[in-house]
Amino acid sequence: MDLWVTEYQTPSLGFSCKISETLRVEQTKYQHLAVVNTDQFGKMLLLDGMIQTTEVDEFVYHEMITMVAINSHPNPKNVLIIGGGDGGTLREVVHHPLVENGTLVEIDDRVIQASKDFFPQLSLSFNNPKANVIVDDGIKFVKQHKDKFDVVIIDSTEPVGPAIQLFSKEFYTDVYNCLKADGIIIAQSESPFFNKDVIKMAYSGINNVFNTTKLYLASIPTYPSGLWSFTIGSKKHDPEKVVFSGDLDLKYYTSAIHQAAFMLPNFVKNIIT
Amino acid sequence: MDLWVTEYQTPSLGFSCKISETLRVEQTKYQHLAVVNTDQFGKMLLLDGMIQTTEVDEFVYHEMITMVAINSHPNPKNVLIIGGGDGGTLREVVHHPLVENGTLVEIDDRVIQASKDFFPQLSLSFNNPKANVIVDDGIKFVKQHKDKFDVVIIDSTEPVGPAIQLFSKEFYTDVYNCLKADGIIIAQSESPFFNKDVIKMAYSGINNVFNTTKLYLASIPTYPSGLWSFTIGSKKHDPEKVVFSGDLDLKYYTSAIHQAAFMLPNFVKNIIT
Repeated sequence: MDLWVTEYQTPSLGFSCKISETLRVEQTKYQHLAVVNTDQFGKMLLLDGMIQTTEVDEFVYHEMITMVAINSHPNPKNVLIIGGGDGGTLREVVHHPLVENGTLVEIDDRVIQASKDFFPQLSLSFNNPKANVIVDDGIKFVKQHKDKFDVVIIDSTEPVGPAIQLFSKEFYTDVYNCLKADGIIIAQSESPFFNKDVIKMAYSGINNVFNTTKLYLASIPTYPSGLWSFTIGSKKHDPEKVVFSGDLDLKYYTSAIHQAAFMLPNFVKNIIT
Repeated sequence: MDLWVTEYQTPSLGFSCKISETLRVEQTKYQHLAVVNTDQFGKMLLLDGMIQTTEVDEFVYHEMITMVAINSHPNPKNVLIIGGGDGGTLREVVHHPLVENGTLVEIDDRVIQASKDFFPQLSLSFNNPKANVIVDDGIKFVKQHKDKFDVVIIDSTEPVGPAIQLFSKEFYTDVYNCLKADGIIIAQSESPFFNKDVIKMAYSGINNVFNTTKLYLASIPTYPSGLWSFTIGSKKHDPEKVVFSGDLDLKYYTSAIHQAAFMLPNFVKNIIT
């Protein structure tokens, strides 16, 4: 008997992976959580039926949500991650030589636990001396901190349910205020093929608050359409300019990719203009 | 009752689209052909169960297999397309103001017929004055022509069955000989996530024959992994340099995308080095 897991990426599009093992299924306080072992992508974490990360392709998302913002900031000492309980973004943040502190604020401790139990390559930085892992509501957390962080990374789930607030103007204003005077916000903003409304919402929301707002892209096979967008807002520095010159030895990101990722196809430009 | 069509992109990965209508199913002399109407991507052409093109995302593949080669050639008057019976590549070729003749050589006339019957946006150029549509074996055709074309586009199916010859060194040598002294070859070469062997085969095969060989990428949601590669070989001109300065008014391609597409993630660079 073959077992498969299917994510309905849209009501009329199914993405199905053959699985060898179901490792965890639970209803947490916040969401339905599953960990399966797939033949194609290795271990896979799903929240509310949506693929969050897999062993095989997680590197793209985690490198690209982290390094573009950090490498366009000359002094990215203090970095805050909202969400990202699997730890992959935190791993990239603390890997960066200029970062002194990486603070992760995840609302659902069961996501952190699932990562510790099944994803050693993602959870390896939870105990890093630079890391500070907090189980709390990120929306509340940013309201409580002012003028503190250099970079804030919004590593959220899709904007349905409680996560919708992570795409609101009020939240972006609170993030603005918790950033220092030359701070940068970066948020995942879904697929330009399937989620044009999400991109418009993130882009206009951030653009209302920050001086410079730009969109960039990366290719992630297990996310709907395989093409993913990130919206970056900056108080002062140009997000397209790479100011870090060291070698990070990554699998996707390079300084050339940093700049190329901002070159948008016309149909993507049209979403934000 | 919901009807769905599933492409098994690999033995352990299924890509399923809800369909409203099956428009054609037939066994041609060369392959199994199907046309269905999907909710997500509009009309879809499948050959041997593999998605070839859809109304919604065909623009990416057809623009990107055509414009990078043509716009790096200063005088792309005569263009040959091997395969591409749906007509989408031909549409882009004859759309270009510097192209005087676009010759399409497709082995399976039933693909051409399916396009005429169901894909008006793809087949609209079959009767263009610049177009020359030939039903014949492309491998035989390139052997019979010497020093004739400026650009040759290999718009093939996957390298299984007869199409495997379109990835052979003998074929690339024949293409080299049918090109003029400053000619360019461009071939689709599959997904860097799933088909590393195909990329190695196309890249090393073309690199053995042409002076300059490069790989570039584009995002195509209905192709496996959503990220697709193209291998370009040139006798003289630098494929990364855009020499055409006009406005082509396309949906994906821009001159900035032309250059950005050659910026490869490290894991892709590693395939070809």
